[in-house]
Amino acid sequence: MARRRLLGLALLCPLALAQTKNTAERLGYPADSKLLILHADDLAVSHSQDRASFAALDRGAASSASIMVPCPWLTEVAEYAKVHPDADLGLHLTLTSEWKNYRWGPVASRNEVPGLLGPDENLWPDVPFVAKHATAAEVEKEIRAQIELALKVGIRPTHLDSHMGTLFSAAYFPVYVKVAHEYGLPFLAMRTPGAPASMLALLKDTDIVPDAIMIAGGATKPENWASYYLGVIRSLKPGLSELIVHLAYDDAEMQAITEGHPAYGSAWRQRDFDVITSPEFRKALQDNQVTLVGWKAIRQKAPARK
Amino acid sequence: MARRRLLGLALLCPLALAQTKNTAERLGYPADSKLLILHADDLAVSHSQDRASFAALDRGAASSASIMVPCPWLTEVAEYAKVHPDADLGLHLTLTSEWKNYRWGPVASRNEVPGLLGPDENLWPDVPFVAKHATAAEVEKEIRAQIELALKVGIRPTHLDSHMGTLFSAAYFPVYVKVAHEYGLPFLAMRTPGAPASMLALLKDTDIVPDAIMIAGGATKPENWASYYLGVIRSLKPGLSELIVHLAYDDAEMQAITEGHPAYGSAWRQRDFDVITSPEFRKALQDNQVTLVGWKAIRQKAPARK
Repeated sequence: MARRRLLGLALLCPLALAQTKNTAERLGYPADSKLLILHADDLAVSHSQDRASFAALDRGAASSASIMVPCPWLTEVAEYAKVHPDADLGLHLTLTSEWKNYRWGPVASRNEVPGLLGPDENLWPDVPFVAKHATAAEVEKEIRAQIELALKVGIRPTHLDSHMGTLFSAAYFPVYVKVAHEYGLPFLAMRTPGAPASMLALLKDTDIVPDAIMIAGGATKPENWASYYLGVIRSLKPGLSELIVHLAYDDAEMQAITEGHPAYGSAWRQRDFDVITSPEFRKALQDNQVTLVGWKAIRQKAPARK
Repeated sequence: MARRRLLGLALLCPLALAQTKNTAERLGYPADSKLLILHADDLAVSHSQDRASFAALDRGAASSASIMVPCPWLTEVAEYAKVHPDADLGLHLTLTSEWKNYRWGPVASRNEVPGLLGPDENLWPDVPFVAKHATAAEVEKEIRAQIELALKVGIRPTHLDSHMGTLFSAAYFPVYVKVAHEYGLPFLAMRTPGAPASMLALLKDTDIVPDAIMIAGGATKPENWASYYLGVIRSLKPGLSELIVHLAYDDAEMQAITEGHPAYGSAWRQRDFDVITSPEFRKALQDNQVTLVGWKAIRQKAPARK
């Protein structure tokens, strides 16, 4: 999953637009600032994920997170959002249900999004199934339903992004950007050299997106976890970067959910949590003059909702 | 919830039909046999529930169980069912989603069952909301969708029953019985004196239902758990009885799911597990000549599916 997500971002997102200011300056910081969104994915997928992510947000170890609206623990996150109105919480628009034993369906009515449904009437387990079966119209219907449900349960999202990168394809990127613009929400994307011109054309000059996105991949050995993340921090460049992590406790619930899938599995998420909450990691942020920011800073620069 | 369920069964289920043989005899046992379905409710609601229920089924401590098809862990149960084709597994037809932080929706398309949906687009949290908002036609659509999904994922149900007793009302009982008859599945009900004649008329002479149903209620103190269940066993009468239990481990997942609701909560379910798997309970079954049976025994006597 990691590799696909990275490839999706690298290959499919729009080419750099000419900007007179760099991203840090556009956000009101000096041009040489290293701004980092330390972003926890997958809120609402499980209680374990919620607890670990809330703990990281509460202590400032994570600066932003995004929520899987179709997942069972949504109301737990909605409750957290009410109690923590300053928490930087976006929507992790979700078109897949990737675990074997633990599954969720769409928010839209099933008969309106048949192409999103796998054999058990829940969302497909992987991105290629979605790409093969779901129309952009179905995807649009579902992501609108997810945003509306989030609003309905009291969540005021700071941004949008895409679970497993399903929306970072030429087929679905247009509806993702259209809906984000309509709601006045910033969204995860990158102005990547080599992306199709049709996708490039969708980004407005006013859209502020990260200059770099980093995420651990399957090649990282468990014993090298800390050195991978410390290396990311040391090599950050000025501008806006997002480091995506997955935070959960390696407990019975999370082990059962991620059974048979070590990549992004239970132990993986515990390692992510352990590293980003460690004194060494915090020191690396300080030593490298990294400023943690949230999507809210970007949202404040976004045009108002239509 | 316990009291409502018991009242539902006591007040609303059809009156005793004259039978020439008692239930034990109809199932091929001597008339004085004490047959007991030791029934674990709520499979698929959580991994904790599944693990504890599977453990009890595997060691013969529970003789039957039923599955909440709309819940996230359905495929874990479907996998268990494939590996354990003799396991006695029915469908716990589910029209409510009763926990605060952990929620599930209908299997039918949301736009086809709007009366089943609460404010978060999932099922209502309690029976009175269902009764107020959902038509019998919506209920029928949803329970058919649950049965069809169970079949689709490879489950061959032995019986039907009703989560939180929602189907044991005069409004919904007719569709419950109609659908059960159509699928040739036995179903939980009781021929209870005083039930409305309209409900009584729905049961066929060929329907075999328990003579007694027992379930722990909120008045039972934790320290009296074993004595409650041992008392149930000692006072069993000849014929067919069902003892309903809820089996889960008192772990982080189950505590989070049942937060703020001690009745049928996490510790409650651990106590149920501890008692029915104890040597004392097993000895009580032996001392009182109780024979554990499953719904399969009843299904074998049921008329073939239409």
